[in-house]
Amino acid sequence: MQLIPIVIPELKINSDRLRADFDDLATIGATDEGGINRLALSPDDIQARAWFADKIDSAGLLIRDDDAANLSGVLPCNVPGAKTLLIGSHLDSVPDGGRYDGSIGVLAGLEVLRTIRESGVRLPVDVEVIDFTDDEGCWKSLFGCRAFAGNFEMRDVTEFIAHNGQFVAALRRAGVINPRMLLNARRDPATLCGYLELHIEQGQRLEREKIDIGVVTGIVGRKRYDIAFYGQAGHSGTTDMYKRRDALRGAALFITRAHDLIRERFGDGIFNCGDIQVKPGVFNVIPAEARLVVELRHVDERIMAEMEREITAIAQQCAASTGLDTPPTVATVTHMPAAQMTDGTIRAFEDACDELGCTHRRLISYAGHSAQILSQMIPCGMIFIPSVGGISHHPSEFSEWDVVIAGANVLLRTVIRTALA
Amino acid sequence: MQLIPIVIPELKINSDRLRADFDDLATIGATDEGGINRLALSPDDIQARAWFADKIDSAGLLIRDDDAANLSGVLPCNVPGAKTLLIGSHLDSVPDGGRYDGSIGVLAGLEVLRTIRESGVRLPVDVEVIDFTDDEGCWKSLFGCRAFAGNFEMRDVTEFIAHNGQFVAALRRAGVINPRMLLNARRDPATLCGYLELHIEQGQRLEREKIDIGVVTGIVGRKRYDIAFYGQAGHSGTTDMYKRRDALRGAALFITRAHDLIRERFGDGIFNCGDIQVKPGVFNVIPAEARLVVELRHVDERIMAEMEREITAIAQQCAASTGLDTPPTVATVTHMPAAQMTDGTIRAFEDACDELGCTHRRLISYAGHSAQILSQMIPCGMIFIPSVGGISHHPSEFSEWDVVIAGANVLLRTVIRTALA
Repeated sequence: MQLIPIVIPELKINSDRLRADFDDLATIGATDEGGINRLALSPDDIQARAWFADKIDSAGLLIRDDDAANLSGVLPCNVPGAKTLLIGSHLDSVPDGGRYDGSIGVLAGLEVLRTIRESGVRLPVDVEVIDFTDDEGCWKSLFGCRAFAGNFEMRDVTEFIAHNGQFVAALRRAGVINPRMLLNARRDPATLCGYLELHIEQGQRLEREKIDIGVVTGIVGRKRYDIAFYGQAGHSGTTDMYKRRDALRGAALFITRAHDLIRERFGDGIFNCGDIQVKPGVFNVIPAEARLVVELRHVDERIMAEMEREITAIAQQCAASTGLDTPPTVATVTHMPAAQMTDGTIRAFEDACDELGCTHRRLISYAGHSAQILSQMIPCGMIFIPSVGGISHHPSEFSEWDVVIAGANVLLRTVIRTALA
Repeated sequence: MQLIPIVIPELKINSDRLRADFDDLATIGATDEGGINRLALSPDDIQARAWFADKIDSAGLLIRDDDAANLSGVLPCNVPGAKTLLIGSHLDSVPDGGRYDGSIGVLAGLEVLRTIRESGVRLPVDVEVIDFTDDEGCWKSLFGCRAFAGNFEMRDVTEFIAHNGQFVAALRRAGVINPRMLLNARRDPATLCGYLELHIEQGQRLEREKIDIGVVTGIVGRKRYDIAFYGQAGHSGTTDMYKRRDALRGAALFITRAHDLIRERFGDGIFNCGDIQVKPGVFNVIPAEARLVVELRHVDERIMAEMEREITAIAQQCAASTGLDTPPTVATVTHMPAAQMTDGTIRAFEDACDELGCTHRRLISYAGHSAQILSQMIPCGMIFIPSVGGISHHPSEFSEWDVVIAGANVLLRTVIRTALA
C-alpha cells in the first residue's frame, strides 16, 4: 500500500452540502415547534434511515447494517486485514427533541467520509460512519451500541424477545428479520481501531467561555436509585400533628437536603429526583409511602461511591428526624460506570483544533453517549460544539452553523490523523 | 298530652342487645383483617341497610327513607305537629375501614329508641335514628346529609345524573327509583328540633387524659388546595446544577417549611400534603412541574384564613429561593366551613355525663361529620368516645365496650333531656 502525501490543512468538508443534508433530514419527523419527533424505529426514524442509506449509496460508500439495526456507510481502503475507524452518533431523537442531538454527529461523519473519498486521499484503514439504534432509549437505552459492543448475552435476547413484542416488531420493520440473531451484531474489537464522535454539548460551559470546541476527557457514571420512605397512613384531621409519621414529609426533607449536599460538597456531581409516587395519595390521608426516583452522576467512580454513602445517610437522618421509625430503602436500579476517553484521541482532537485555529478546552460529559459503552472495547474520543443556552432535548435546541462546520473539520482532521497514526 | 313522670337515671340502654347488634352488623362486609369494607351503596352496604330496616321493624319502630337513600327508624310520639329529634350517623365505611366508625352511632341511636319505647316513657317529640348515605364520600362526601339539609339545587341534580351514572345506578339499587327527585330529600328545619350524634374520637386526646366522653364544641373547617410549582424541564446531567429550575426542589422545600410552620405557629391547625404529581416524571429529566394536593383544617375560620395567607407566602418564598421564576399557583378546590355545636346541647351532654358519673372534656373535632352540614339548619351536638391508639379508618380501629355503653347512656339521657326541654 502506498500513501499519497497530503497537506492535511488543505482538506475541508463541504459546508453547503452538510447544510443541505441537515435541512433535509430535519424535515423527517419535523414538529410544529421546530424540533423533531423521531423515536427509535418509529416510521419517521425508519424514513430517516432510508434517507441516510440513500445518501451513503449516492456518495459511493458501502452500506452496512447489522442484526441490531445499526446502519453504516463505509469508505473501504481495500487493504487486506485493515482495521476500521468508526465515526458515529444517532439519528433517533427523544420525544419532541431538537434537530442537532445525534443527527449532527452522523451527518458530520458522512460528510467526513465524502470529503476524504473525493479528495483521493487513501487511508490505511476503513472509515465507517454509523447510526446506532435507539441511543435515546425509547426501547432500551444505547441498544445499538450495546449490541455492537457485545454487552448482551443469549439469555438477554431470549428474555427480551419474550417481553418486548413491540420492540421486536419495530426491529423487524427496520429490517432485522430474526431478532434471535442479535448477538451477531457484536463486532470484534481486534478489527476496530477507534471510535470518534461529534456531539452538541447540551450544557453552557463552552458558550459561557466563548470556546469553539470541547474535548471530552470522560463521561460521567450514572446511578439510578429507587428510594422509598415509609410512614403510617392515618386520618389527616384527627391524627396528632406531633405524632403523625408522614412519609412525604420525610421524603421532602430528603430532597431538600440532598440538593443542598451535592451543591455544597460535590461541585462536579449531579443529583436529580425526577419523580415521586405517594401512597395512598389522597388529600385527607397521611402519606404512608413516598417512593422517589433518584439519579446521581459523577465522572469519578470513587467520588460517586462517596456521594451514594452521603445520600443514603441523609435519607436515614431525614426519616429519623421526621418520626419515621422504619428506615428508608435505597435500591440501585441501574449503574452505568464512568468512562475515560483515550489520551491519544484527546490529544489528536486538540492538535486538530490548534491547527485549524479553533479555541478548545477539556471537559467532562454529563450526558451518556455511545462512547461510554464503546470505551470498554476500543479507544474512544468525543468533541462537543456549543449549545446555545445549553438547551437540548427540546425543539429550541440550537448550535451556530460556523461551530458545526468547525467541529466537522476538526473531526475530519482527527480522523485522518488517527488513521495515519 | 300527659307526660308520665320519670326518674331519668333509672333508664339505661340494654348493653347485651347493643353488643349483639354490633357483632351481627360487623359480619356484613367483614374483612380478613378484622375490619369492614362497606362502601356506600355497595352490595354489603345494601345488606347492612336491609339488616338495619329489619331491626327497626322488629323493634316496633317506623321505617322511613327518602330520595337520597337516607334510612331511618322513627319512634313517633303521635302528637300532632310534633317536631323530630334526630340521632344519626352512618353505616358505610371507608375502604378497609373499622367496625366502629359510624356504625356505633347508628346502633346506639337505635338502642336509645328501643329503650325509650320499652320504658313506656312518652316524649313530646318524634325521635328518629338516621343512617346518612355515603358519609365517607365513596361517591360524594356527606351526600345523604347534604341532600337532607337542602344543599343541592336542581342544576346539581342534572349535572350529577349526567356525569355519575354508576352512582345513580347504585342509588337505584338502594331503592331510589328516580334520582331526579333528590331535592325531595330536603327536610324542613321547622319540623326538626335538633341533631345528636355519638362517634368515635379517631384521635388520642381522650385516651391520653383517661376521659370517658368528649363533648364536641366545634368541627374544624377544611380547605383543600391544588398548589403547583413550575420550573423548567431539562437534561438532568448537562444542565448546570446551580442554574436549574427544579419544580420538585421548590415543592419539597415548601412541604418541609409548611409542616414546620403549622407546628410552630398554629398549634390547633392541621396541614396535610397527601399527594404530589411530578411532570414529566422521568429519572433523567429535571421536574418542570410539581402539583401538590394540600389540606388545611382549623376550627376558627379567621385563623384558617391566616394559615392560608402564611402557606401561600411560604409557597412563594420557596419558589423564589429555589430559583423558580414563575410563582406557584394556589387554587382552592373545596371549602367546608367550620361549624359550632349548640351551647344547649353541649351543656345537655355535660349534664348527662355528670349525672351518670362519666368524666368528660370539651374538644373540637378534626374530622368532618354530618353535624357540620346539619348545624347550618338545626341545633347540633356530638359526643366522642375514646379510640384506642387514636386509630381509625383501619381494621384495628377499636373502642372499649364500657365506653360504648357509657356513651350510649349519655346519648339516651341527652335525648330525653333535649326532648323534654
